[in-house]
Amino acid sequence: MSKITVNLATNLKEKPKDQSKLGFGQYFTDHMFIMNYDEGQGWHDARIVPYGPLPLDPSAMCLHYGQEVFEGLKAYKTQDGRILMFRPDQNFKRLSMSNERMVIPAFDEEFMVEALIELVKIEKDWIPTAEGTSLYIRPFIIAVDPMLGVHPAHHYLFMIILSPVGSYYAGGLAPVNIYVESNYVRAVKGGLGFAKTAANYAASLKGQAEAELHKYSQVLWLDGIERKYIEEVGAMNIFFVIGDELVTPALNGSILPGITRMSVIEIAKQWGMKVSERRISIDEISAAYDKGELKEVFGSGTAAVISPVGHLKYNDKIMIINNGKIGAVSQKLYDNLTGIQWGKLPDTFGWTVEVK
Amino acid sequence: MSKITVNLATNLKEKPKDQSKLGFGQYFTDHMFIMNYDEGQGWHDARIVPYGPLPLDPSAMCLHYGQEVFEGLKAYKTQDGRILMFRPDQNFKRLSMSNERMVIPAFDEEFMVEALIELVKIEKDWIPTAEGTSLYIRPFIIAVDPMLGVHPAHHYLFMIILSPVGSYYAGGLAPVNIYVESNYVRAVKGGLGFAKTAANYAASLKGQAEAELHKYSQVLWLDGIERKYIEEVGAMNIFFVIGDELVTPALNGSILPGITRMSVIEIAKQWGMKVSERRISIDEISAAYDKGELKEVFGSGTAAVISPVGHLKYNDKIMIINNGKIGAVSQKLYDNLTGIQWGKLPDTFGWTVEVK
Ligand SMILES: Cc1ncc(COP(=O)(O)O)c(C=O)c1O
Ligand SMILES: Cc1ncc(COP(=O)(O)O)c(C=O)c1O
Repeated sequence: MSKITVNLATNLKEKPKDQSKLGFGQYFTDHMFIMNYDEGQGWHDARIVPYGPLPLDPSAMCLHYGQEVFEGLKAYKTQDGRILMFRPDQNFKRLSMSNERMVIPAFDEEFMVEALIELVKIEKDWIPTAEGTSLYIRPFIIAVDPMLGVHPAHHYLFMIILSPVGSYYAGGLAPVNIYVESNYVRAVKGGLGFAKTAANYAASLKGQAEAELHKYSQVLWLDGIERKYIEEVGAMNIFFVIGDELVTPALNGSILPGITRMSVIEIAKQWGMKVSERRISIDEISAAYDKGELKEVFGSGTAAVISPVGHLKYNDKIMIINNGKIGAVSQKLYDNLTGIQWGKLPDTFGWTVEVK
Repeated sequence: MSKITVNLATNLKEKPKDQSKLGFGQYFTDHMFIMNYDEGQGWHDARIVPYGPLPLDPSAMCLHYGQEVFEGLKAYKTQDGRILMFRPDQNFKRLSMSNERMVIPAFDEEFMVEALIELVKIEKDWIPTAEGTSLYIRPFIIAVDPMLGVHPAHHYLFMIILSPVGSYYAGGLAPVNIYVESNYVRAVKGGLGFAKTAANYAASLKGQAEAELHKYSQVLWLDGIERKYIEEVGAMNIFFVIGDELVTPALNGSILPGITRMSVIEIAKQWGMKVSERRISIDEISAAYDKGELKEVFGSGTAAVISPVGHLKYNDKIMIINNGKIGAVSQKLYDNLTGIQWGKLPDTFGWTVEVK
């Protein structure tokens, strides 16, 4: 693997002034990372260049057959001015796994962590500082052969783009309403569900759009075979506090192995909570609710970190969770995780990577 | 819907000289069709412009979330110099259906047939004339919002590109070997299988690549739920001649409603054959094979038209179909369909559209 060439932009963009209006994924920084793969040559020409359009041939394979994978993680600015990233090694590890499933050539994970650090260092002034804001990092790989015909490509681009993003919770941590989807299926065992690849998000668009029509902000997906086991939310894994047990669906091949999920499990275990990764049906959730044992429900993911669920709708049944209020476990996990991410709490797990 | 603006290329490319080496989807013509969609404005600015790269923002939604749909059809040059397209109305109808599933805004199907005719007229000298060759037509739509975040886009491009393609059967119609996939799943009921969208092809790459390692040219997919009902081949629907019945899997939501499939059914019915569209398991096929009742197996699709299967492998069982030779029904359907497509036989169904 060669070194990274850097070509700095001569004109810098104006940074968004109002950090309370950043939203998500709307602004992009001045530079991007890019690296080519050509069969026979491997990955080459790693470079940081001014952010700008990619000239793609209209026949570029990614525009037709969806051979594309991506990641999502964040860099945070601490109060004492340090820059922290949360478990970037895990994101590149997961990207490798996605690559494997999507028949995209392997890359050097350690090199990519270095490349990312290099890029974030150059863009450090883009990291917003207001409470809850961060720099969203989007590594992705696309197949670019200018050729039609369904088969794995011979040419790829590996890119990283950066976007300053707002606080997910404008008014502080707040519960969301979730709709249990029983018409559409996102992914099935034997398919692509565990990979972070375009297809899974494409499959989620219609269910998500219909949920929004009914004023639900997210969809909870059920398994594609029996349509009763709980999988995950659009861009989050899901957890239930049943009695004093923390339960989350096992990694069964059709859900994304979330890095926040993994971290939640590690923290809860350290606290001495009973944690189960297992198959769990919507009927079990419904029964626990009726018995008063369903204490809390929350999603976990990079965007929201912890997202308490206030209201869960399955067919005609509406379950109001913890009176629509944030539960103690959700709040404590949120405080703990964001504390580590924003450098307010000691990082006893060694999860953060400082950009120096 | 406005008219189509035409901006002709000043430098034309050299056309491939050897029509026996065209292959598939490797060469593109001098012009392409392009039309924009912007929320509030609808589809606008339909135009034919010189073929060339699309400047896409690295955050363009289609590069991340696979909101993209496409079609595939062909234009043929007849011996008396006419140009025929095969059922283009059906392709745009199917594209509309794909759009609906993928939450992409509707378009005017009739206008698109006209636009296609206009484009093919301009590119008529690109249609190859050697036996079995044709001009492959690829309409496609991609989501182009420069914004991350999983939701249906507000901006799209509708494009048509054209590629002169070789004869699928270099040495004349020949049987292929097919591998019944039992590890991976392409699509499942409730998912995207019936739509012509990137996700389904992305899901097929690994199974297809592994089949090729074992010297099989195509994969036959089974259903994602019970893993025993036959679905379709990578880019073809599948037919079985069992006794004197022509059987093909019913359109169940997880397979593509092929236009060649539809045409095969109409022709076979006209011949007075018994045709069944129904659920059919791989075990039923295997049992019919053992009883000597499995007379023929063939795929149907735009690329190969009819593709006889000589050899079908399911787990450890190898079924040699019709002694590895082309069956009478397959041959007759091939002759009939290609006869209509290349204008050698009267088009009693009114399927062809002439480009004048
Ligand atoms: C489908 C899906 N599930 C779960 C997650 C949560 O994963 P992570 O915690 O790594 O962000 C995400 C988002 O990143 C996702 O897209
Ligand atoms: C998955 C799939 N099934 C079936 C077909 C056959 O459809 P058609 O006959 O319309 O070409 C195709 C190809 O076009 C395809 O991609």
